Amino acid sequence: MRILVVNVNTTESMTDSIGRQAAAAASPGTEIVALTPLFGADSVEGNYESYLAAIAVMETVRAYTEPFDAVIQAGYGEHGREGLQELLDVPVVDITEAGASTAMFLGHKYSVVTTLDRAVPMIEDRLKLAGLDARCASVRASGLGVLELEEDPDRAVTAIVEQAESAVTQDRAEVIVLGCGGMAGLDADIRKRTGVPVVDGVAAAVTIAESLVRLGLSTSKVRTYAPPRPKTFKNWPPR
Amino acid sequence: MRILVVNVNTTESMTDSIGRQAAAAASPGTEIVALTPLFGADSVEGNYESYLAAIAVMETVRAYTEPFDAVIQAGYGEHGREGLQELLDVPVVDITEAGASTAMFLGHKYSVVTTLDRAVPMIEDRLKLAGLDARCASVRASGLGVLELEEDPDRAVTAIVEQAESAVTQDRAEVIVLGCGGMAGLDADIRKRTGVPVVDGVAAAVTIAESLVRLGLSTSKVRTYAPPRPKTFKNWPPR
Amino acid sequence: MRILVVNVNTTESMTDSIGRQAAAAASPGTEIVALTPLFGADSVEGNYESYLAAIAVMETVRAYTEPFDAVIQAGYGEHGREGLQELLDVPVVDITEAGASTAMFLGHKYSVVTTLDRAVPMIEDRLKLAGLDARCASVRASGLGVLELEEDPDRAVTAIVEQAESAVTQDRAEVIVLGCGGMAGLDADIRKRTGVPVVDGVAAAVTIAESLVRLGLSTSKVRTYAPPRPKTFKNWPPR
Amino acid sequence: MRILVVNVNTTESMTDSIGRQAAAAASPGTEIVALTPLFGADSVEGNYESYLAAIAVMETVRAYTEPFDAVIQAGYGEHGREGLQELLDVPVVDITEAGASTAMFLGHKYSVVTTLDRAVPMIEDRLKLAGLDARCASVRASGLGVLELEEDPDRAVTAIVEQAESAVTQDRAEVIVLGCGGMAGLDADIRKRTGVPVVDGVAAAVTIAESLVRLGLSTSKVRTYAPPRPKTFKNWPPR
Amino acid sequence: MRILVVNVNTTESMTDSIGRQAAAAASPGTEIVALTPLFGADSVEGNYESYLAAIAVMETVRAYTEPFDAVIQAGYGEHGREGLQELLDVPVVDITEAGASTAMFLGHKYSVVTTLDRAVPMIEDRLKLAGLDARCASVRASGLGVLELEEDPDRAVTAIVEQAESAVTQDRAEVIVLGCGGMAGLDADIRKRTGVPVVDGVAAAVTIAESLVRLGLSTSKVRTYAPPRPKTFKNWPPR
Amino acid sequence: MRILVVNVNTTESMTDSIGRQAAAAASPGTEIVALTPLFGADSVEGNYESYLAAIAVMETVRAYTEPFDAVIQAGYGEHGREGLQELLDVPVVDITEAGASTAMFLGHKYSVVTTLDRAVPMIEDRLKLAGLDARCASVRASGLGVLELEEDPDRAVTAIVEQAESAVTQDRAEVIVLGCGGMAGLDADIRKRTGVPVVDGVAAAVTIAESLVRLGLSTSKVRTYAPPRPKTFKNWPPR
Repeated sequence: MRILVVNVNTTESMTDSIGRQAAAAASPGTEIVALTPLFGADSVEGNYESYLAAIAVMETVRAYTEPFDAVIQAGYGEHGREGLQELLDVPVVDITEAGASTAMFLGHKYSVVTTLDRAVPMIEDRLKLAGLDARCASVRASGLGVLELEEDPDRAVTAIVEQAESAVTQDRAEVIVLGCGGMAGLDADIRKRTGVPVVDGVAAAVTIAESLVRLGLSTSKVRTYAPPRPKTFKNWPPR
Repeated sequence: MRILVVNVNTTESMTDSIGRQAAAAASPGTEIVALTPLFGADSVEGNYESYLAAIAVMETVRAYTEPFDAVIQAGYGEHGREGLQELLDVPVVDITEAGASTAMFLGHKYSVVTTLDRAVPMIEDRLKLAGLDARCASVRASGLGVLELEEDPDRAVTAIVEQAESAVTQDRAEVIVLGCGGMAGLDADIRKRTGVPVVDGVAAAVTIAESLVRLGLSTSKVRTYAPPRPKTFKNWPPR
Repeated sequence: MRILVVNVNTTESMTDSIGRQAAAAASPGTEIVALTPLFGADSVEGNYESYLAAIAVMETVRAYTEPFDAVIQAGYGEHGREGLQELLDVPVVDITEAGASTAMFLGHKYSVVTTLDRAVPMIEDRLKLAGLDARCASVRASGLGVLELEEDPDRAVTAIVEQAESAVTQDRAEVIVLGCGGMAGLDADIRKRTGVPVVDGVAAAVTIAESLVRLGLSTSKVRTYAPPRPKTFKNWPPR
Repeated sequence: MRILVVNVNTTESMTDSIGRQAAAAASPGTEIVALTPLFGADSVEGNYESYLAAIAVMETVRAYTEPFDAVIQAGYGEHGREGLQELLDVPVVDITEAGASTAMFLGHKYSVVTTLDRAVPMIEDRLKLAGLDARCASVRASGLGVLELEEDPDRAVTAIVEQAESAVTQDRAEVIVLGCGGMAGLDADIRKRTGVPVVDGVAAAVTIAESLVRLGLSTSKVRTYAPPRPKTFKNWPPR
Repeated sequence: MRILVVNVNTTESMTDSIGRQAAAAASPGTEIVALTPLFGADSVEGNYESYLAAIAVMETVRAYTEPFDAVIQAGYGEHGREGLQELLDVPVVDITEAGASTAMFLGHKYSVVTTLDRAVPMIEDRLKLAGLDARCASVRASGLGVLELEEDPDRAVTAIVEQAESAVTQDRAEVIVLGCGGMAGLDADIRKRTGVPVVDGVAAAVTIAESLVRLGLSTSKVRTYAPPRPKTFKNWPPR
Repeated sequence: MRILVVNVNTTESMTDSIGRQAAAAASPGTEIVALTPLFGADSVEGNYESYLAAIAVMETVRAYTEPFDAVIQAGYGEHGREGLQELLDVPVVDITEAGASTAMFLGHKYSVVTTLDRAVPMIEDRLKLAGLDARCASVRASGLGVLELEEDPDRAVTAIVEQAESAVTQDRAEVIVLGCGGMAGLDADIRKRTGVPVVDGVAAAVTIAESLVRLGLSTSKVRTYAPPRPKTFKNWPPR
């Protein structure tokens, strides 16, 4: 089984990091192919970049010429999953949803700890649309930008742990979801320090994608995610 | 005051039609500039095209070099409004939200009548995110594609009236919102036939945009719609 | 176009203030007629006075003999809008709903800052019924009574700014709505001090009323707001 | 114990009927005093009359000079309960809420069967505000006006049974609430024909009022229902 | 009228205490029979004991050979009410729901003060399922275990008052519900200290059960609570 | 990895069938151990049996002396999952939640098709509590009892397909979840006939349990699912 794990930003080192995290979660026999978008921003921290990433991820997957069995969109709180579902016959798993869905099997309420304050409403919106918000205690920001996570993992762990602890004691979360693709790899550390289960969306998404493939399940094509109708495109795709 | 009204598809005749409808609703002294996206599909009828339109509308507005006072995104149920709000200092009005918001001043519940069945969940999602769904009785599809509306207005009116009547009698709607930018101009006809107020999103958006400008109000920049952070972009914008 | 702006209390100076605020927001060619209820309390700060105001506003509008194009109910969080919609063929706009509806175009979440603590649940109830509560971050009280706002505007601004700041930082509001007809005129000052958009319900209502009139839209009469059925009244109206 | 049961319309025969129904539900030792409002419409079938009734019921209770232990507002889906709670130290029970609250002890979902179609949104709004709507399967209209119920009880029973049956089979209600003060007395008949429990709001309200009195409980005065602040009234009460 | 009040734990002294509280709330002519479950834990403070109590309460009631008119399940936030409703033809009242339902007649929002932190999610879940959560401001834990309430009532009152005060000032509750069967008898004391109405679920349940019996109402049998279908049981009931 | 799959009824042939379905979904290296409860009903079709099953499943798992890595509760819409989570350190997966959670990755809305009409509210309640109801289009009953599914699979498929088709066309479901442990094995057949993805809760639960184990995740023990406190039990467990 081959699963494409698509980064939403164009920073290759982050693609590598996501790919390693995905590979660590994969079953024997699952090949993880980590892709960097063909175009877009070096980090996605707002709606403009996120919308650009949405279309970049779609075009990147369409340009991938080898067969594959599932796709993971590895940006937390980002746009675009619905479009991938239309374009593809194989299952599509968004790490925002994967993280929340997995957390709900582990405790009464969960919280998400993300990067910047401005990402909070984006994540809240994605969880609301996904219908996975009823048991979300809070979405909290560590205040670190996406790329800062990589530059200084110790500081990242400290900042995330602080928010995680507030989520558990004040917001009554019982599980923490790491709300950024770039946090991949910090979960064990944070779990040790907070004592609650910590879900990494990328790892969760890998297991869900594998499960759907093994169960022979994929996106329903009867309505919302039917294949795009034939269109005439102007100036697209860019040469 | 100059308001940009941006079509989401690349069909010029539809841009013209939307522009005329907007101009008809505008106050004296308001200049309507109707824009066609620089790239994208000839009609938007699904998530792939919609995401592409989201980014195309943003780039089109960014490429517009004259001053302007507000922007209307003239695609019903489409993605992208949040990105525009980040990029711009002037008010941004989405016709989906404008239609719903206006309808809520006119009756206890409203319904949206749109084009294809597959657009229904997209519109439901937009209304849910906008927090304008509590008084939405239903979103109904006429079964006509976006371009069919222009080709055969009589058939369009008939199909839309049929759904509007079901919305009023079965779903208990008291107001109908036309759920497609391409329906601009059909409102008077449908109002006559159903006896309930019919809201055209484009016209509603023009009055809301004008109102915000006159009140000196624009998008809050303290969190969700703060300007994008500086980024390094790869292969973007397309040459 | 003539718009009636009806105060909910019988304090003439407050009617004047509301009228001036409305006039400042009106388009050229719009005549604002500010009305004081024929009966009722000198300020409305609870349900008893609010219900009395509801019926007083209705009777006052019915007693107005000149033609008019729209009515604004200028009490924040008060009862009665539904009755006006039944009685009249022209659009009716409640400032509570106008403020919220306008705020929702400007930020991800809004908060209302009102007068007394006891007004908070009333406003929450009106927003809930209007289906405009999903993006309401909080309703906060400044602790000042309605008439104190006029007596000491400086103190009012200070108290309101304090609550507005808490709304932005703690409740994550991105827009502030002034939750009292008597706050008309304080918006510019508060906006300067908080840095977020501040919506005055009266001004917002004027632009919405004008918009509905210009669009030829008015209250749906098919069900909830159909004209009252013929009744025999005992001891009413009072001689 | 003396309980005031206040009709919302000025039709004395309906006050009598409500009083009898209340008395039939009362415990030994409870005196039911049925009051007709001092002013208002002969039947309440819309928001204008309902708002008028709200204030009329309040003034009628205030004009009642004997001691009493609780007040029941005997109009289904009407305005005004909050005002009574402010004015009085004794418990106030609204029959809309009493009926719903009682029904929720009897089955998984309940439906309300009321008079006219236009009453449906009013009842839905009252239940929503009361937070008693989550288990409401539907509010259905029999199509009969308030006074028609008295004129032709057989026809009323037939029309109500028909809607009750649809509520049970189509809307999955397991309990029926009679949604009109004027339906008092029809419950046994309808129960026999539908096989599900039928709750009469007036009878339910009597038992709830008695219970609150016996438990020594009354309206909280710390915030929403604190006594009205001192006011200067213009032209009120009417001479 | 005979009402069975069934404790959920096997501590006889607590059954006695609950029985006394129920008797104090009962009308003349109502006989309260307090039952201790035939099996189970000495206190119920989690889901395992609660599920065990659910089935123990059912078997205990089934083993009761005298006639009775209603059953009260006297465990706050516990499982099992639905099963009793299936098994019995007489009304079943859960004290969690009785307390909430009664509180809703007394103020705009209510809070529950319970024993241990771990009981909070259980109570939240019961209120959500019962559709009585919309006006619940908070569920707060005093930190005392069920049996500690009996051992040291003074300390219990102090701890509960502290949470009640926070509920009123911070969570904006206007009514307090005592969230444990074992708190029966503390209500007067707490009411005196907080100034808001305090509802004891056991007392409230007694009046509701009496009311249902007097109104001739009992559980609907058309669907959810139809009698159990005939089954073959293995190893049950235990010899 | 060893996963216990616990039937909720005492019919051994159904345990076998569930075990086979689970084994078919399991990864190589996963051992499925299907358990029949030590006591309880031969089929669970209502709350009484379901509560009994809840405690029976818990005692059965406690009595299992070999090591295991996860537990699946294989009754659709049944009680008890929270208790298992308290008792165990390993992950617990309920098939109701597993089915819904999986379906949400496959389409915009899903419907559940279950056995008897009376099971519908039970399933709705479980989904509501799990916070997985927002995208549930409907829960529909095929009208067949649990044991009838085994006796006549052809008739079962026909009845389920009919409801599935109504769910897709009328309720706008895009995915079908089989709402009964006893439906295990019918999914492929139904998928073929309806054209939408069909999720079997047992199979879904196996993959989720495996995933949690592989990710090293288990139930959070900080609050709701902390281990039971020490208790003294009367007459339990049964000898």
